[in-house]
Amino acid sequence: MAFQGELGAFSQQAIYQLLGQDVEPVPCSWFDEVFRSLAEHKVTAAVIPIENTLHGSVHENYDHLLNFRLPIVGETSVRIVHNLIAPPGVRFRDIKKVYSHPVALNQCLGFFAAHPHLEKVPFYDTAGSVKMLMAERPEGAAAIASALAAEMYGARILRRSIEDDRENHTRFFLLRRKAPPWKWREGEDPKTWKTSLVFSTRNVPGALFRAISAFALRDLNLAKIESRPLRGKPWEYLFYVDVIGHVGQTGMQNALRHLRELTDMLHVLGCYKRG
Amino acid sequence: MAFQGELGAFSQQAIYQLLGQDVEPVPCSWFDEVFRSLAEHKVTAAVIPIENTLHGSVHENYDHLLNFRLPIVGETSVRIVHNLIAPPGVRFRDIKKVYSHPVALNQCLGFFAAHPHLEKVPFYDTAGSVKMLMAERPEGAAAIASALAAEMYGARILRRSIEDDRENHTRFFLLRRKAPPWKWREGEDPKTWKTSLVFSTRNVPGALFRAISAFALRDLNLAKIESRPLRGKPWEYLFYVDVIGHVGQTGMQNALRHLRELTDMLHVLGCYKRG
Repeated sequence: MAFQGELGAFSQQAIYQLLGQDVEPVPCSWFDEVFRSLAEHKVTAAVIPIENTLHGSVHENYDHLLNFRLPIVGETSVRIVHNLIAPPGVRFRDIKKVYSHPVALNQCLGFFAAHPHLEKVPFYDTAGSVKMLMAERPEGAAAIASALAAEMYGARILRRSIEDDRENHTRFFLLRRKAPPWKWREGEDPKTWKTSLVFSTRNVPGALFRAISAFALRDLNLAKIESRPLRGKPWEYLFYVDVIGHVGQTGMQNALRHLRELTDMLHVLGCYKRG
Repeated sequence: MAFQGELGAFSQQAIYQLLGQDVEPVPCSWFDEVFRSLAEHKVTAAVIPIENTLHGSVHENYDHLLNFRLPIVGETSVRIVHNLIAPPGVRFRDIKKVYSHPVALNQCLGFFAAHPHLEKVPFYDTAGSVKMLMAERPEGAAAIASALAAEMYGARILRRSIEDDRENHTRFFLLRRKAPPWKWREGEDPKTWKTSLVFSTRNVPGALFRAISAFALRDLNLAKIESRPLRGKPWEYLFYVDVIGHVGQTGMQNALRHLRELTDMLHVLGCYKRG
């Protein structure tokens, strides 16, 4: 099971939510390494972050989905909870410096306002900052990271859930080498499924309007739509769309056939139970 | 002129492109500080990154645009060029470690493959890594950052443009406290303008289709569309849309009146010359 980041990263939490704790997480340094590990049979599945409520879509991973053609077979959402973490024996009143990724430090401004003597120290990774504290034990230092990171490295949580915004979630995709047969079973509720697509149109007025008519005319609802300019081709666009429904339903099959007429490129990224 | 990051950040490059080099850049640690500086009259203008071709939209800045109601009055796009930078006197053959933000290190994999003896060292900021090198002078160390960062801190560029992907651009918005009067002058080419909007609809099938009909029916073209689930309100969505055209044109005025009928919330974020 490959993921990007240090052990204890939020991606590892996503793995546990998707597959339980009996899987062996294989940390990778870069996203393309995650995809390559799966493509080259080094792991049996992979988890990638695809969007965050504060930071938007991870376009790089959409690129990899298109290039590696590894199907999406599941999704889950992880709430980003930040904790103040220190090595065993270090007390809250000992702390003078707090290490973490700048994004995480920025998401705990209320905590730092309440404790103005604490110095924020930017570090390249949240879980990595806990790993560093445990290895180097700098004096009077704590980190901000996930509860899982504290557990993985044997550190202690001194203050739980110190993030400002409770509505900070990251959505993850589960990938495998081969999709299960996307057969639709009559009687199942299609609203419990999602189908993810990418397509491109030429940038003529109304092109997107016509493209999404393929779904609107069949009462299929969109859960996500996003355009992305194709750099180097300044007048062409990629669209990422998530449609509520199963790729095997008749309405969806008709919508995809209709959409194929209206687009230059259309690729089904996956079909999965809504997480 | 406020921006987020250390001196020498790509945002500073955006400022120079928008306003020339005669402005005084005021670096801020966080995005909300950039907005607050402008709202509280500490600066006369601000620059924020809004999307990157590899990393997607900066949702946090869309939130601030909506909350602070500071109008967009300009845009520009900066190509992200990474350079290998070291203090004066350090030669390429002396280098053993390369410091930079993990994202920048990840964007120069070809360079590292060609020089396998170089160790990648993650650091919290690209320009900040040059600043650190110049202050602490660790032995055998270089950084990856912008040419502007080398110039700001008096460091030398040892290798130029070592990034893998030339199609890595970040788009920036210029903000002021008050928008100029959005008057439309007959005879000007409306295609040289963009109007940015945010609106919300209830998540009923076809809601987005009807909303963008307001533009399609008037032959107005969309340059960007993006949905964002409103967390806490799981069935409502925000949409960010950029329309090609000037907010003062008759067709645009009609489209906005039509869109107002179809949406729960509609806010014009700004109108500006295409950058």
